[in-house]
Amino acid sequence: MKEFKFESFEKSLPRRKFLLSTGMFAAGAVLSACTLTEEPIRLADADSAAEVPAWPWNYKKLDPEVARKKGYDGYFSNGGCMGGAIVGTLGYLQEEAGAPFTSIPIEMFKYGAGGAVGWGTLCGALNGAGAFLNLLSKDYSKIYNELIGWYCGFPFPSDKHESYCKFPGQITTVSNSPLCHNSVTIWCTEAGVRFDSQEKYDRCAKLTGDVAAKAIELLNAEIEGKFIAAYKPTEEHAACMSCHTGPKSPIGNVQGKMDCLDCHDDHTK
Amino acid sequence: MKEFKFESFEKSLPRRKFLLSTGMFAAGAVLSACTLTEEPIRLADADSAAEVPAWPWNYKKLDPEVARKKGYDGYFSNGGCMGGAIVGTLGYLQEEAGAPFTSIPIEMFKYGAGGAVGWGTLCGALNGAGAFLNLLSKDYSKIYNELIGWYCGFPFPSDKHESYCKFPGQITTVSNSPLCHNSVTIWCTEAGVRFDSQEKYDRCAKLTGDVAAKAIELLNAEIEGKFIAAYKPTEEHAACMSCHTGPKSPIGNVQGKMDCLDCHDDHTK
Repeated sequence: MKEFKFESFEKSLPRRKFLLSTGMFAAGAVLSACTLTEEPIRLADADSAAEVPAWPWNYKKLDPEVARKKGYDGYFSNGGCMGGAIVGTLGYLQEEAGAPFTSIPIEMFKYGAGGAVGWGTLCGALNGAGAFLNLLSKDYSKIYNELIGWYCGFPFPSDKHESYCKFPGQITTVSNSPLCHNSVTIWCTEAGVRFDSQEKYDRCAKLTGDVAAKAIELLNAEIEGKFIAAYKPTEEHAACMSCHTGPKSPIGNVQGKMDCLDCHDDHTK
Repeated sequence: MKEFKFESFEKSLPRRKFLLSTGMFAAGAVLSACTLTEEPIRLADADSAAEVPAWPWNYKKLDPEVARKKGYDGYFSNGGCMGGAIVGTLGYLQEEAGAPFTSIPIEMFKYGAGGAVGWGTLCGALNGAGAFLNLLSKDYSKIYNELIGWYCGFPFPSDKHESYCKFPGQITTVSNSPLCHNSVTIWCTEAGVRFDSQEKYDRCAKLTGDVAAKAIELLNAEIEGKFIAAYKPTEEHAACMSCHTGPKSPIGNVQGKMDCLDCHDDHTK
């Protein structure tokens, strides 16, 4: 089995301050020029640029199960969870519908891997799915809110990747959070494997496919007029928010929908 | 002063399950059709689609101070912090360089507002800046890591918006975190204002401009061969990670670079 490595995480580690002399600055400039140049690309004139359709772009209905497999594969081919979710949604739409979707490079969504180059914030699969939903619907907010709420309570990974995955039969955990840090750490602790193991990469690839599939399920429900916002915050969260937010709360200082008691003690008890 | 309202947050609130009968499903379908249709748009043929340049796209050097003002304005015109950061970076590049940048609709980046439709995860300004950096450099990871590290220690908002902002002279706070929840809640508590107040919107608009400006500063440094990765995690974080991650750690179960002690007690003391 070929070992998968995470380039983007490794590159984000602090590097030594080696650009200290003029000569070394020049060397740095040459290195940089390989990936970043100052000249703008101009491949289209003003007329063709005007052909870019107004947002939101129209949606061609996709198959959640195809998206699930593409999201899994995309995790390994496009820089992790955010890039994988984009392969399973926008990339899939590019294959099915061509332009204008092909004008958005799928590689620009690698940055969300590991909750933003490994910082552990928003799960990258959710981040990629958000961009996809937002591209296609003015009502992205209600659909995306539902997707995030579903994610918090779902036992990842699903068992729908058994026929092609590298590690079938993995244990499942519920993160109770949209944060990569919680999702990965809870699963790794329960599974007894490292965060940079092949087992964990396979688990997150499956999760990526699962999120891509669910985003498409919700979007399909929306165009069929069947979308229902089922997610509700927990009673504990609602109790905290009765003081900390809401139009009539006395404090109203908190922004967020994550479960408060994951990080805070309940100071009312 | 015109009052600013946050559409996307309001739409993400759970709505009543009103689509319960066939007739009401049909009504839902009509409503949905206003913003989401099933037919793909085809405005370009296969040849013109092939004109989309390979990633990463070339960068035309931008002015951080222009980006700062555009990011501030973009917060109000393009759905909040993520959309604003995109206006200040990608939108600015669209004005300066035209195609192919104009083929990516800036409206598709509204979903990150309030840390993903109000969930309080990754700061939307950082989310938008990540997409911009990722579009333009294969080395986005080291630049983005630096931007996030800088964000965690910066006293937002800067005082560089005084001549045009709605609330000059606001207090500043350091969030010690890339999460919207921490950044907003700490500032609101210190400022004594609500999370949905005009004062807070102005603060976050300034922060959005500040993040757009910093992203461009770092990218400019990169093409000039002057980029230095200055950010280092705190000693406390490094101490936790010596067990919880790293190639030789005994556990290696944690993914993330956020400050552990913001949410966890130090169990070694």
